[in-house]
Amino acid sequence: MTDLTPTVRSRIKRLRERGAYDFDTIASILDAGLLCHVGYIIDGHPYVTPTAYWRESGRVYWHGSSASRMLRTLEKGVDVCFTVSHLDGLVLARSGFNHSINYRSVMLFGRAHKIEGDGAKAQALEKFLERMFPTRWQQLRPATTQEIKATTVLGMAIEEGSAKVRTGWPHDDEDDHSWPVWAGVVPVHTVMQSPLPDERLAGAIGPPAYLADLSHLGLKAK
Amino acid sequence: MTDLTPTVRSRIKRLRERGAYDFDTIASILDAGLLCHVGYIIDGHPYVTPTAYWRESGRVYWHGSSASRMLRTLEKGVDVCFTVSHLDGLVLARSGFNHSINYRSVMLFGRAHKIEGDGAKAQALEKFLERMFPTRWQQLRPATTQEIKATTVLGMAIEEGSAKVRTGWPHDDEDDHSWPVWAGVVPVHTVMQSPLPDERLAGAIGPPAYLADLSHLGLKAK
Repeated sequence: MTDLTPTVRSRIKRLRERGAYDFDTIASILDAGLLCHVGYIIDGHPYVTPTAYWRESGRVYWHGSSASRMLRTLEKGVDVCFTVSHLDGLVLARSGFNHSINYRSVMLFGRAHKIEGDGAKAQALEKFLERMFPTRWQQLRPATTQEIKATTVLGMAIEEGSAKVRTGWPHDDEDDHSWPVWAGVVPVHTVMQSPLPDERLAGAIGPPAYLADLSHLGLKAK
Repeated sequence: MTDLTPTVRSRIKRLRERGAYDFDTIASILDAGLLCHVGYIIDGHPYVTPTAYWRESGRVYWHGSSASRMLRTLEKGVDVCFTVSHLDGLVLARSGFNHSINYRSVMLFGRAHKIEGDGAKAQALEKFLERMFPTRWQQLRPATTQEIKATTVLGMAIEEGSAKVRTGWPHDDEDDHSWPVWAGVVPVHTVMQSPLPDERLAGAIGPPAYLADLSHLGLKAK
């Protein structure tokens, strides 16, 4: 895929050593998450909606009820800012102002387009579910036409945007290193716990193998 | 504190049983997190910036370099959408369309105001750090006037907004319960791992007691 060219909107101005525009870095951050924050404008006011997303090739996708105000606004092709962020650690320095956070984030700019046609929509949603839980789609009660019609799927090309990443240790002022206070990093992870069966589940159905490892969603095992 | 009154912007329209406007629910979700996503408009385009935040009484606060484009925009008092979301679980149902996510989110609307004066700024930042790491502020190398001047602190009143929460089990169609596929919930948590000391830390300084439990930041122990 094509690396991105910094623009007025996407160029990292502060702490620019943390910025990246190459497709692989952006894709790897997108692929390590489940929830994005979509920013858009209605009647001149900004809105930020958290929602599930997925990436396929050079596009990101998200979906929801066709009645959703967010989706009805975005399907018109208005401007979108699509942000994904992962918290990786707390960074404790010798001065308050050198405290920081380790994180990986991506900010994309563009306009969403609606996936048209029941077949294309069903195919997109199958990819979403299969990314999360490989082989599950075929095991499910098949989608009805009504369910597909009641769902809107939006996509947006990964064409303008940037990644921003902080890793590692506190950056203290040189003279501060001897200050007698603990300094270091508290790593933070998102973890999955053991699957809990629905109470109406038939007794013989155990948790499927694909739930044993959800590291492709950025979730570590407990 | 005062419960919020739903407005055109903040009223939950879809799945309204998930919505809440009472101050305690909103505060408890805000107080269980570290990173918010701030939405704002520059030259007619939406931006969504992840940043650390804290709450004190009826306001949320965030901060950063005085050179930050986000902060320089927001200190003018433009419209802001301030969103916090916590991922609590993956909900696997018998049909793809009944899959869901357990989450807690808050969306606030308003205009930010800049904290003026070095003393007031230092006090606000002390509260931010003390919320995270009680007693630490006094242990740190004291803030310099230059550090305080180079930092902008913004606050916003919790006056317009809503919470949205999903908990619990899949909501399958009644006829789907006998479908032979696993259904249930995969709980998701954010956890802290053991603190890692900076390599230039004097050997005698062990990790402080306040790092043993960061559950007030929404972080479970490993």
